Amino acid sequence: MEYQFSDRIKALKPSAIREIFKYASDPGVISLSAGNPSPEAFPADEIAEITAKILKERPIEALQYGVTEGYAPLRAYLSDYMREKHGVGRDFDGILITSGAQQVMDLFSKSVLNEGDTVICEAPSFIGSLNTFRSYNVRLKGIPMENDGMNVELLEQALKNEKNVKFIYVIPNFQNPTGITTGMEKRRQIYELAKRYRVLILEDNPYGDLRFAGSHIEALKSLDTEGIVVYAGTFSKVISPGLRVGYAVAPEEILRKMVVCKQGEDVHTAILNQMICYEFMAHYDYEGHLKKLKEIYRAKAKIACDAMDRYLAPEITYMPIEGGLFFWCTLPERTDMPSFCKKAVRERVCVVPGTAFLTDEKQPCGSFRINYTTPDNTGLVKGIKILGGILK
Amino acid sequence: MEYQFSDRIKALKPSAIREIFKYASDPGVISLSAGNPSPEAFPADEIAEITAKILKERPIEALQYGVTEGYAPLRAYLSDYMREKHGVGRDFDGILITSGAQQVMDLFSKSVLNEGDTVICEAPSFIGSLNTFRSYNVRLKGIPMENDGMNVELLEQALKNEKNVKFIYVIPNFQNPTGITTGMEKRRQIYELAKRYRVLILEDNPYGDLRFAGSHIEALKSLDTEGIVVYAGTFSKVISPGLRVGYAVAPEEILRKMVVCKQGEDVHTAILNQMICYEFMAHYDYEGHLKKLKEIYRAKAKIACDAMDRYLAPEITYMPIEGGLFFWCTLPERTDMPSFCKKAVRERVCVVPGTAFLTDEKQPCGSFRINYTTPDNTGLVKGIKILGGILK
Repeated sequence: MEYQFSDRIKALKPSAIREIFKYASDPGVISLSAGNPSPEAFPADEIAEITAKILKERPIEALQYGVTEGYAPLRAYLSDYMREKHGVGRDFDGILITSGAQQVMDLFSKSVLNEGDTVICEAPSFIGSLNTFRSYNVRLKGIPMENDGMNVELLEQALKNEKNVKFIYVIPNFQNPTGITTGMEKRRQIYELAKRYRVLILEDNPYGDLRFAGSHIEALKSLDTEGIVVYAGTFSKVISPGLRVGYAVAPEEILRKMVVCKQGEDVHTAILNQMICYEFMAHYDYEGHLKKLKEIYRAKAKIACDAMDRYLAPEITYMPIEGGLFFWCTLPERTDMPSFCKKAVRERVCVVPGTAFLTDEKQPCGSFRINYTTPDNTGLVKGIKILGGILK
Repeated sequence: MEYQFSDRIKALKPSAIREIFKYASDPGVISLSAGNPSPEAFPADEIAEITAKILKERPIEALQYGVTEGYAPLRAYLSDYMREKHGVGRDFDGILITSGAQQVMDLFSKSVLNEGDTVICEAPSFIGSLNTFRSYNVRLKGIPMENDGMNVELLEQALKNEKNVKFIYVIPNFQNPTGITTGMEKRRQIYELAKRYRVLILEDNPYGDLRFAGSHIEALKSLDTEGIVVYAGTFSKVISPGLRVGYAVAPEEILRKMVVCKQGEDVHTAILNQMICYEFMAHYDYEGHLKKLKEIYRAKAKIACDAMDRYLAPEITYMPIEGGLFFWCTLPERTDMPSFCKKAVRERVCVVPGTAFLTDEKQPCGSFRINYTTPDNTGLVKGIKILGGILK
């Protein structure tokens, strides 16, 4: 049988990144290519304790079907928490629990994108989201990143010239892959431009709680007096990614459509997993846990920086970060980045070639992404040393 | 802000069924409208024991990111199990773990449907799947159900006349909503027609293990020498729906596309939940559990039948069932079904109007669906008695 796939799928070619992941799962390989949070940061004992209690006291509630919108106590608690702690959410906003933040990208895309529409994104940007948008057969318009976020002049030009722009996709904190944080002034400018040109903003904030340096910057969503920002949050980086619990804070009218889409995708997010997140957030020392996380990431990032300063500098430079999981490293001019990454794989170190994060993978790119949180400290330093050796 | 939603979403109006569910969540209401498995059938103690063990011995594995295809031991075990026990899966097939079987409908739709294509389905059929198909902006062509499955003459006519038919959607065992089981002869005919007309089959089998009468009939997928059947299975009815673990057995070439789509939807299905299903299947008395389930459903279905015979007959008739969760009840001719259902709600009993399951909800329909597994036995009998009273 010769299968006929949909146009949207024919357009979605398997990403270069997946080829690399194949090697990365080999236990002899040092993976600097993942996006995994540090396992030592998981509140494993607390989760075991909470889960035992839930399954003893309320097994039926945890195991039966639930409502699409999410586990009510989690929705209520999280909604208050995001409003009070982050200024995220107003009276016109609601909250929807999703199966990871990735599902926010998908449900929102499904709700607003027609084929042929345009999505504006940072360039480079997170490949997972870019592929979600691509799966709706849309055009991606990348806006180059500067040290404090996307170039707003080029953003305005794109808003003026591109047809059927439906939303701007931004990762304002410790962006994936560059690690760049969008400054407050730029957040305001992006918001004002979206407002003026009547387009929505999709704000993806998976790493916001992993700030280990510098000062907190308010979310774009906190500026949202007009109801034009859809905010995606997740427990993946602060509790556990394996549980697959994320959430959207967005105008109720948009969420209602996303709920209809979610019904058709997975009915609802696993209840036990939502209950675990709720109990941990509401009845354990959540703030203390976040503080501990930051310490783990601060220490580990310092080890990575020290190793990069020692083994990669001055040829390979990296973008300084104030949080998150990634370093964006740039090779000397005229170095062939793809063949550098291939050589690294042969020496059993995996990094992600920067092209994977471009709206057009055929564009030239001299950078690659390093994740410093997955390997243990010895592997991390050894991996960076090997990368340095390749160039020399 | 006036939001612009996608065409696919504008076409998806909120279903009548949801209005009914609003009432059904009121604790004073007897819900015969859900699709919940009997909570007494959940292996709650075993799940508690398994989960404690996993979180004690392998917490990082359970809490870290996993691969999109699913937890490897579950995939391997389930693949062998389905092949050996059900003849489901050949050398060209693979297995993908999904977030409930609903996600199989969605990922497969996303992989093969273009806007304007046609999906052939049973009429009536499961609204959740119909809405998934609708969300891809396709045309639904319903084939009337007979006592032993869809009318194959009309199926052939549709295959001849409809444009761009991509697949036939069937629920061969204890169909939702009618409870009808497609006979072996018809399964063969449907398979042969699909083969002849070069279209795929989406076989949805959530209730297959809940057979409490009659003899087992082989899955359509067991006939699949050509690689044209995508089989959707789930743990929702045999372990727990709240865990959201389902699976697809399908040709590898199709699964590869579905995996790319899943990456963009929820990255992977929650790992802890997959581990729970694996451990229960592989290391507990799974067959004994299935036997116990059948006894629970057999006993409960008998209570429902006795009550219907006593309180609904002869005016309201019901389709006999050999398993599954639903009874399809038909009112006397010229009775206004929607107003009957509304009256039931006013008397605090919820059923689902049959129109909800039609490809065109505006078609006339004198039937409604009863679920007998959600309420306790007292509520079940009381609810049926009230329904009988409404007509009299």
